[in-house]
Amino acid sequence: MSVLLPHHDGSPLYVSNDAPTIGEVVTVRLRVPAGYGPLRAVRTRSNPDHEPEWTEAALVGSADGWDWWQAPITVRNPRHGYRFVLVHEDGTVLWLNQSGLHGGETLDAEDFALVANPAPPAWLHESVMYQVFPDRFARSAQADSHPTPDWAIPTAWDDPVDPVMPGRSQQFYGGDIPGIIEHLDHLVELGVNLLYLTPVFPAASNHRYDASSFDAVDPLLGGDEAYIRLIEEAHARGIRVIGDLTSNHSGDRHEWFQAALGNPGAETEDFYYFTDDGNTHYESWLGTPTLPKFDWSSEQLRERFVSGDDSVVAKWLKPPYSIDGWRIDVANMTGRLGDVDLNAEVRQLFRETMLRINPDAILLGESTNDAISDLQGDGWHGAMTYPSFTRPVWGWLSEPDGAPYLTAEGEERTEPWFFGQPIGGIPKYTARDVADAVVRFTAGIPWRVRLGNMQPLDTHDTGRFATNAAPGTVPVAVGLSMTLPGLPVVFAGDEFGLVGADGEASRTPMPWGSESDVPVAERLALYRDLVGLRRAHPVLGAGGMRWLHVDDETLVFVREGADESVLVLATRGGADVELLPGALSGAAAAQELVGDATLAVASDGAVMLAAEGPAFAAWSLPGVLLPSEG
Amino acid sequence: MSVLLPHHDGSPLYVSNDAPTIGEVVTVRLRVPAGYGPLRAVRTRSNPDHEPEWTEAALVGSADGWDWWQAPITVRNPRHGYRFVLVHEDGTVLWLNQSGLHGGETLDAEDFALVANPAPPAWLHESVMYQVFPDRFARSAQADSHPTPDWAIPTAWDDPVDPVMPGRSQQFYGGDIPGIIEHLDHLVELGVNLLYLTPVFPAASNHRYDASSFDAVDPLLGGDEAYIRLIEEAHARGIRVIGDLTSNHSGDRHEWFQAALGNPGAETEDFYYFTDDGNTHYESWLGTPTLPKFDWSSEQLRERFVSGDDSVVAKWLKPPYSIDGWRIDVANMTGRLGDVDLNAEVRQLFRETMLRINPDAILLGESTNDAISDLQGDGWHGAMTYPSFTRPVWGWLSEPDGAPYLTAEGEERTEPWFFGQPIGGIPKYTARDVADAVVRFTAGIPWRVRLGNMQPLDTHDTGRFATNAAPGTVPVAVGLSMTLPGLPVVFAGDEFGLVGADGEASRTPMPWGSESDVPVAERLALYRDLVGLRRAHPVLGAGGMRWLHVDDETLVFVREGADESVLVLATRGGADVELLPGALSGAAAAQELVGDATLAVASDGAVMLAAEGPAFAAWSLPGVLLPSEG
Repeated sequence: MSVLLPHHDGSPLYVSNDAPTIGEVVTVRLRVPAGYGPLRAVRTRSNPDHEPEWTEAALVGSADGWDWWQAPITVRNPRHGYRFVLVHEDGTVLWLNQSGLHGGETLDAEDFALVANPAPPAWLHESVMYQVFPDRFARSAQADSHPTPDWAIPTAWDDPVDPVMPGRSQQFYGGDIPGIIEHLDHLVELGVNLLYLTPVFPAASNHRYDASSFDAVDPLLGGDEAYIRLIEEAHARGIRVIGDLTSNHSGDRHEWFQAALGNPGAETEDFYYFTDDGNTHYESWLGTPTLPKFDWSSEQLRERFVSGDDSVVAKWLKPPYSIDGWRIDVANMTGRLGDVDLNAEVRQLFRETMLRINPDAILLGESTNDAISDLQGDGWHGAMTYPSFTRPVWGWLSEPDGAPYLTAEGEERTEPWFFGQPIGGIPKYTARDVADAVVRFTAGIPWRVRLGNMQPLDTHDTGRFATNAAPGTVPVAVGLSMTLPGLPVVFAGDEFGLVGADGEASRTPMPWGSESDVPVAERLALYRDLVGLRRAHPVLGAGGMRWLHVDDETLVFVREGADESVLVLATRGGADVELLPGALSGAAAAQELVGDATLAVASDGAVMLAAEGPAFAAWSLPGVLLPSEG
Repeated sequence: MSVLLPHHDGSPLYVSNDAPTIGEVVTVRLRVPAGYGPLRAVRTRSNPDHEPEWTEAALVGSADGWDWWQAPITVRNPRHGYRFVLVHEDGTVLWLNQSGLHGGETLDAEDFALVANPAPPAWLHESVMYQVFPDRFARSAQADSHPTPDWAIPTAWDDPVDPVMPGRSQQFYGGDIPGIIEHLDHLVELGVNLLYLTPVFPAASNHRYDASSFDAVDPLLGGDEAYIRLIEEAHARGIRVIGDLTSNHSGDRHEWFQAALGNPGAETEDFYYFTDDGNTHYESWLGTPTLPKFDWSSEQLRERFVSGDDSVVAKWLKPPYSIDGWRIDVANMTGRLGDVDLNAEVRQLFRETMLRINPDAILLGESTNDAISDLQGDGWHGAMTYPSFTRPVWGWLSEPDGAPYLTAEGEERTEPWFFGQPIGGIPKYTARDVADAVVRFTAGIPWRVRLGNMQPLDTHDTGRFATNAAPGTVPVAVGLSMTLPGLPVVFAGDEFGLVGADGEASRTPMPWGSESDVPVAERLALYRDLVGLRRAHPVLGAGGMRWLHVDDETLVFVREGADESVLVLATRGGADVELLPGALSGAAAAQELVGDATLAVASDGAVMLAAEGPAFAAWSLPGVLLPSEG
């Protein structure tokens, strides 16, 4: 489809204030193509306290082939939903919400939404994240001096990853924080500016999600001293650093748990769900006994973990550590068990504490499936989530070869891994399916929160995208991660072309030294170019987003702002697209930024885009012209 | 479209227990047409504590052209969502949820859902509701002895309704409860068996939503004595009775409010939101000073209104009153104001109290727009709501004539009234749009709760459907209200063919004595027939629901059970439909129940349905054959 439709989104072109307070009036704007309609009226419908409230929009002017309507909205609730209704001269009524234009009444859940609390730090939208799994990133000379812990199976850097238990969690490569520091310039060269480290607390596994304490950095990693130095060195290079915290559980070796295990009456016993009088049985993460689940009804847990001035959350945000935020593990299950659901209370407590301790910090929650219910702006600034980007892109651009791999239990599998979903491998998506999935899984999330959602091709919990990528599609996938609204993420190693069938095999040690090998050098250059694209064009961070063309092979969209816009084309099978005249103003001045595609403007203003597939391309365009108000 | 697709819904054919407890295993079944697929696997995906959990379905047998798969689900949360995934031999993956079959991953919000708390009384699904607005229903001789209250404008029964303030709320026709008792046999003849009375508490308006007390029935209506007698007389006729309670506000003459107004420190001051030190300013319903809003953070309000043994909610459920439930006014706004949202707590408190006092009572909440967020099974058994039935049916079957009417402010309007939505009148829907709206606004509601949603064509708050009905469409609309899943509602007077442009004009006094006039007699017969249809076929109450055919003019669906199924056809422009062989087993034995349509079965099993529009028709069919397990 190539269509020219009325448009609104949560970006500054259309919303006067994305962090209002309750009672404040926000101006919202609707942009309507000049040839559209004609319209008898445009109105907004809000739903304060769940009862409709309407305001009248006025046509404030036209510019560059678009009419601009604008209406006031008084913000009434912490999440203030609104939609537009377009009453046409012929009596047709259309509703516009975050899932598009509709002929019938729409769901409250898919309204546009303002969030009435402080905005995330602006730097979140200017960031490209780089994810590091410390055991596998780099091993400094210092690491040799550490004794091997009791649980570990020492493993040489070049040894293959063992995906079968116990090696799966006990293989110990010994990457450490000084190793990371030694390679910070790699991050600088790549262009990333936000480092996310999976847990650094002491634990009894290579992944360290089973912390034995939240009070110190694992000495095997170099301890607090190395961590402080890492953050200082990173900050000196303009790179922010966030940590990883398990709010759903601790390790069973955790000091709080050990104090309570078998010890009824212990001060920390109500931190966990002990299910017998002797404190020997307890709830745990998916029944894994090494990961006892926290009981967030405990006021003392809330105080010591989150809200207290010396809490875990607070401590690491403050000097001398000064991390720039937290990624919260298993945020989706946190505080939830059976008929108890304290999730909203807990995520709000995190947010309130962080606003108090360091309002310039970010808070991301892991919620790997449909995260909509938890992403309404009250807690997490965004999510590590897969259905709105990662999985659809895998579905579109994969061509799995059926190479066997081993599960944790040592069983051989040839069905490609797909995020733990037992659906027979990687589903086949068209480009149209990708656009549908992006819309479906973001329509229920306020724009401001959507921008904070991580947009990885893979993580330490997934196979690596490149493993199954169809020939030539890696640039398409990386390009989309850098240009769709959301927080781009590079999982360390992807820029070296690493592969891995599942979330264990993907934890390959970094192949330092291979940078000048031909395929690696090409991949590194690709990443540098596309990370650079994102960094050089702020509109890719916080600009508006308008789909221009979607078919089975191709996606075309534009990220728009007042100063600049960026046109994006992504195709697997090849593109030969004509955009309607008026769809894309300023195209005659387009400057190619990356990619191998052609753009031509016909005399009537239609824009022709063509590329051999697979291809990713982007062009810089002038910013959107707004009417001069008067 | 005529399609033959895998099917599941929340009815007993497919779910072994619709009121499980947490930890219980429920068996869910999927029905797949024999020619479909082939399927490599069928699985369920639940999402306990927001983390996916999968179970394997087994093919348990075939019957009558359908394969039946079945899987166990362990119920983990109070609302336990689940979906099916169908893995086809060719690798195609389809997901089935409450909005249908999907090629891509689906939203948690649209999962099928089990509700782990006590089921509503079974009689809810066997009921046809009759709504009475007491001031306008019937005036007994006794009413003449009552003095006219200070606020009232006495009005003769035959005088026209004055839609302009102050007459709008002060015109007093003087209908009373003895008048209702005198006409109970009309309800019996009509076939309805659930009487819903709008408020009967003393107030200062004809609608009585501004109660001055919740402790007594308005003496103008005959007082407690008449109310007790009404309920006894109704019960003696097999008719249950529910009351109407304002949980969002009281009247400003209410004893609680008067005690606190201008009286800081009064015991009841925290029942309301006073906004100044002198208790003279306060929050109210949409800024209407006569309706001060309740503050549900008050523990004492909770106790006296809901949870106490002598609370308002409890008192009327107990003898000597023994009402059969409550309809809660403005349930959608209750407990919500700005950054406060206590709605879930309040509705749960209502439910808990009612389960304790009278578990055989029902609890319905008014939520006139998208009610999904509040209808997850924790509080209301169902809602008085309009987007899932009433509004789409109006959109499809209306043909407004533009006759002028007056607003509350006395302004003349020719745009037909449409539920207060400023969208230029009644939108134009096709039958397909109706089906889409039904699906859109019910997909997010657990099946059990959906069955409790009221399905009125109009109420005391809306214009009357007949006002704008296209010629011949009233049987179609009434037929759908009786056959789609939900609680049918007749607003008193509709069975006489009354009209009324908006929610004021619709409050016409009942035209008793006109029963034998030709158009009235025909309308009465229509209602008797269609209420009778619903009452005679329990499958219309709690049976499954499968769409068989939808096009712009026609809806065909079947309500299915093990003992009987009912096939329904509704058309505006006329129907000429062929259902695929296998879509509808047992059609050869179909018996016409109502309507003027033809049904013929071809030799290959295809079913031909034809009717001149507008038409409504229904046929009885044998129940669904299940495979013998073994």
